[in-house]
Amino acid sequence: MFASTMPQGVVAGSIPLFAGHPAHDLLPIEAVRAVVDAAWPAPNVTRLFNYGDERGNPELISFLVDRLNREEKLGITRENLMIIGGSTWGVDMAAKQLAKPGDAVLADAPSYRDALHIFRDHQLDLFAVPIDAGGAIVEKMAESLKALAAQGRSPKFYYVVPNFQNPSGVTMPEARRRAIIQLARRYGFVILEDDVYHDIRFEEELPPSFFQLAEGKNVLRLGTFSKTLAPGLRIGWLIGSSDRIASFAGSGKLVMGGGANPFSAAIVADFCGSGAWEKHLRWLRGQYRMRRDLALGALQVSMPAAVEWTRPDGGYFIWLRLPRSVNVDDLAQLAQARGIYFASGRGFFAHPADGAHHLRLSFSYVPLDDLQYGIKALGQLIGRMLAERA
Amino acid sequence: MFASTMPQGVVAGSIPLFAGHPAHDLLPIEAVRAVVDAAWPAPNVTRLFNYGDERGNPELISFLVDRLNREEKLGITRENLMIIGGSTWGVDMAAKQLAKPGDAVLADAPSYRDALHIFRDHQLDLFAVPIDAGGAIVEKMAESLKALAAQGRSPKFYYVVPNFQNPSGVTMPEARRRAIIQLARRYGFVILEDDVYHDIRFEEELPPSFFQLAEGKNVLRLGTFSKTLAPGLRIGWLIGSSDRIASFAGSGKLVMGGGANPFSAAIVADFCGSGAWEKHLRWLRGQYRMRRDLALGALQVSMPAAVEWTRPDGGYFIWLRLPRSVNVDDLAQLAQARGIYFASGRGFFAHPADGAHHLRLSFSYVPLDDLQYGIKALGQLIGRMLAERA
Repeated sequence: MFASTMPQGVVAGSIPLFAGHPAHDLLPIEAVRAVVDAAWPAPNVTRLFNYGDERGNPELISFLVDRLNREEKLGITRENLMIIGGSTWGVDMAAKQLAKPGDAVLADAPSYRDALHIFRDHQLDLFAVPIDAGGAIVEKMAESLKALAAQGRSPKFYYVVPNFQNPSGVTMPEARRRAIIQLARRYGFVILEDDVYHDIRFEEELPPSFFQLAEGKNVLRLGTFSKTLAPGLRIGWLIGSSDRIASFAGSGKLVMGGGANPFSAAIVADFCGSGAWEKHLRWLRGQYRMRRDLALGALQVSMPAAVEWTRPDGGYFIWLRLPRSVNVDDLAQLAQARGIYFASGRGFFAHPADGAHHLRLSFSYVPLDDLQYGIKALGQLIGRMLAERA
Repeated sequence: MFASTMPQGVVAGSIPLFAGHPAHDLLPIEAVRAVVDAAWPAPNVTRLFNYGDERGNPELISFLVDRLNREEKLGITRENLMIIGGSTWGVDMAAKQLAKPGDAVLADAPSYRDALHIFRDHQLDLFAVPIDAGGAIVEKMAESLKALAAQGRSPKFYYVVPNFQNPSGVTMPEARRRAIIQLARRYGFVILEDDVYHDIRFEEELPPSFFQLAEGKNVLRLGTFSKTLAPGLRIGWLIGSSDRIASFAGSGKLVMGGGANPFSAAIVADFCGSGAWEKHLRWLRGQYRMRRDLALGALQVSMPAAVEWTRPDGGYFIWLRLPRSVNVDDLAQLAQARGIYFASGRGFFAHPADGAHHLRLSFSYVPLDDLQYGIKALGQLIGRMLAERA
């Protein structure tokens, strides 16, 4: 049931540090309202309400193609992009199109839990690649590939969140991306680049995307408005080779029945076309950076020395490593008694035991004072557990 | 690419009699606007914008459960219903959950072309059951089942549009539904009841649904707001046993990442909750009935005696059978030269040749004078083809 993105069921007054949602006051509700008000009297208001093109809202496609070409110098055309109903839907779609039950696939350990859930339910054979502060460790990936090749197998795709990874917050440097593209070419697998946090960056520059570095060859890249506009609109996009996009848009396994959410796609298109998205993004990055700084500061002052954590340059998440003597389940139980909920590390690994000493904190959702209070309380609890076990 | 529901690509000024869309002036655009205006200042406006429950908008679930129990005396609870992103998505979802590649499934011949596309791309082994004026012919279905059983096989499900079928417009009587439920019990298959036209009925009463007759056992029933509110909102629903709904909502093969379109689902919930949907439905039925009458009248005065057609009591479609000497492709070519487009019968059969003398007319979309003009022109063309071949 995707508990990692669900604040439902959490007792009122508690602190859901697990929630990978945008905070309510970061949603541009009034700006969207202005767009909706302006959309109605237009002569083509029925584009909001009737069936649309299976590839999605044409204005939004144009906007995204232009923006990606301008900002990242990609050189894509309309044939390379389709609108989808959110990026998680895109992961599901790619899993269906690229692999069949029993096929091998690669993903980071840890990785996005809904993606692991999707791969598991599609009965894909998941090979986990451990990560460090630069994402997937290339040597470990190469070892897995060799072991697979020895069995006459090769993976169908490698699933990666390249920037501000969920759950770790780490960003993969360019050299490592290039090395993985070489492996992809040698072993013949597709790179499924889930770049959902791309626009929640706190520094100017990001490494070039896998899509750019591979010149679009055998890379499918996902983007979304869920993190930068509103998840409830359920609009994302997929870029890839024109052949692959055509086969996705025409497949009876991926049918949307008239394009991804024409109503909300039209609103998103107008929001972007008016310049409101870029304006919102500039403000939003500052808000999330401030939240990140607040969380890192609270960790710094509250956590026992034996606890380690990442320092993300964007996105929503900080990843903590607990000392060996502190089990994440024990900590979760104590924390929940105080109304504090975090995402256990277990959910982010194909082998849950690998996450027994990890947890993910989200700085995107809870009010600022709850963010500080929650981290401080966690620090106290860990300190007490360490003292008891000493 | 689902051309049957796509007016795109049709030359301006032409008459798309193939389009299974609601006409633009039948969309309650201003009533939806009033709902959107009212939604904004509400304290819980974020339900429009953030991730929601994986089963969908809770108010909309409550509304539908109450309405189905009141109008059809179903006795379902919230555990039996989930909100989905349109009914075609539901067909895809059910195909994935109920069957695997190579499995046998049953569907009417002719049947909804997007469903056939979905089953084909999921590599299901489709067994076609011919229909007459009462839908699937039970004896023919029984023969198929016996033949399958002789091979040690049985179908996973039977896909049926029970009311005002697409493309034929026929409604299956109660006795036949009961007989099919008996077959489903004997041979152990699920009935996938795609009841998308349920609320576009021109008479008071419909036969009880398969879901009702089978007391919900091994029936999955789909409904939608696409035909009665607006396709662009992409909201439908699925009812079934609580176990099956739970497994659907929790499956990584069906992930929506926070429920079906929270933004448009909230608008639909408010639209329904305000009473606007019931009011719109009463008006809409009269509009579609008038369109149906106009189309039947035009057929009566324009078609050569050798042409036969159905007289639907609801829905969007009339199904024509051409004389043996008139091939639908030849007619399509002549009609297109005059700017008239219909849906060839070929697309509605697993074996396209079976539709070589059939076509589907939609009375839902084109302006009234185009509807009359288009049918009259088709009648002339068929008459001319018959004269040439005589």
